[in-house]
Amino acid sequence: MHRFFIPKECIKQNKISLQGEPAHQISHVLRLQPKDFIVVLDNSGWEYEVKIEKASRELVQGRVVKKDFCANEPAVKITLYQALLKIDKFEFVLQKGVEIGVSAFVPFVSERCVTRKPAESKIERWKRIIQESAEQSQRALLPALSPVVSFEEACQQVGNLAILLWEEEKSSRLSRILKSDSFQEAQTFALFVGPEGGFPLSEVKYAQSHGIIPAGLGRRILRAETASLAAISAILYEKGELG
Amino acid sequence: MHRFFIPKECIKQNKISLQGEPAHQISHVLRLQPKDFIVVLDNSGWEYEVKIEKASRELVQGRVVKKDFCANEPAVKITLYQALLKIDKFEFVLQKGVEIGVSAFVPFVSERCVTRKPAESKIERWKRIIQESAEQSQRALLPALSPVVSFEEACQQVGNLAILLWEEEKSSRLSRILKSDSFQEAQTFALFVGPEGGFPLSEVKYAQSHGIIPAGLGRRILRAETASLAAISAILYEKGELG
Repeated sequence: MHRFFIPKECIKQNKISLQGEPAHQISHVLRLQPKDFIVVLDNSGWEYEVKIEKASRELVQGRVVKKDFCANEPAVKITLYQALLKIDKFEFVLQKGVEIGVSAFVPFVSERCVTRKPAESKIERWKRIIQESAEQSQRALLPALSPVVSFEEACQQVGNLAILLWEEEKSSRLSRILKSDSFQEAQTFALFVGPEGGFPLSEVKYAQSHGIIPAGLGRRILRAETASLAAISAILYEKGELG
Repeated sequence: MHRFFIPKECIKQNKISLQGEPAHQISHVLRLQPKDFIVVLDNSGWEYEVKIEKASRELVQGRVVKKDFCANEPAVKITLYQALLKIDKFEFVLQKGVEIGVSAFVPFVSERCVTRKPAESKIERWKRIIQESAEQSQRALLPALSPVVSFEEACQQVGNLAILLWEEEKSSRLSRILKSDSFQEAQTFALFVGPEGGFPLSEVKYAQSHGIIPAGLGRRILRAETASLAAISAILYEKGELG
């Protein structure tokens, strides 16, 4: 069944009413018709099974026939602080990160970033990628996308257990941190991944001064986007949330 | 230092001699010159640090100044049996799979594959992707690429512990298998990942009849290529080979 995140106000007393892009998507792109079923989500954690009653390009209406709490969200909330990458790689991290189970994305600009701060239209595109990936992978909540911040701002805003992947860190490995008591108890977690050229030592030290722990991923050198996804997979696996 | 897999016969008594594409790459693309250093690998597990003595488009010659055993290979050898995917997604799995630590790839065609068997030129391209990724990620051995086989042939050739990712498998989870004694002892491991449309029940049963264990990845639905990389990351993490 197709899944759609919709604004909360589109659900009223067991009736849904959609206009604009979602109506066009349902009636015209997917060619769904009255009596077809869809699942809608209002980003509250609940999912609503809906029987379509009217479907035109301008307006789709339907009736909620079932309401369930969706248990697909990981209990551990990972915020991925991802340096801007070349556009296709950044979008790749968003799409795959949502599937694997990231809860929020904070894009940042650091010293070695070669990609400029994106235009507003790009941010809208990123939000669509996140939404489509969340619908396809059956997430119950829509991962948040923060505005682009500087590396320093990113470091200043983390309050919880935070790790920074650094390929030159040989003594502190990610696995050791993930098996520590503080991680095992943690319900929120921040992961910092740098741009294609990595972090210079000065940035690593700045992060450390804000309590962020540098960690290596092992002996092979992973591209930035691969490092993000491998680390997220490892974190969620360790927490029993993947596999 | 740039790394290059080269044929064994190009290293003789501490001298290396390269022609054709590698010579062009070193002298013309990377513009390396006499007195520059490179690392060459002959797919034996050893790496050789080489001082360039001559660099023209047709011929690069150098002298081995150091020989080390490269410890970057994972002890557990994962063979990824990957159904053909849309070309960009398949190439993505090859590139990222090499970085994370796959030891061999076996592409196969199954019932729901929408991609046709590739031409010979495509196979050559895939081998280049594997080699470039192995050089960049500092692998010591070049992951093998088998010819494309049928799903049935793929099932028949696995001898060791083998898992098939199946999104409809709710009772047998990957993590439970990875924490079992038989996996903890295993040094080789086969992972089957289906095409975009997944495996039909008939194929899952066929795989089971050859001792392959179906396993789920958890509550979220991952795209085929994401499932491959998340599962490989989890396997290598569990074995202490990632993170």
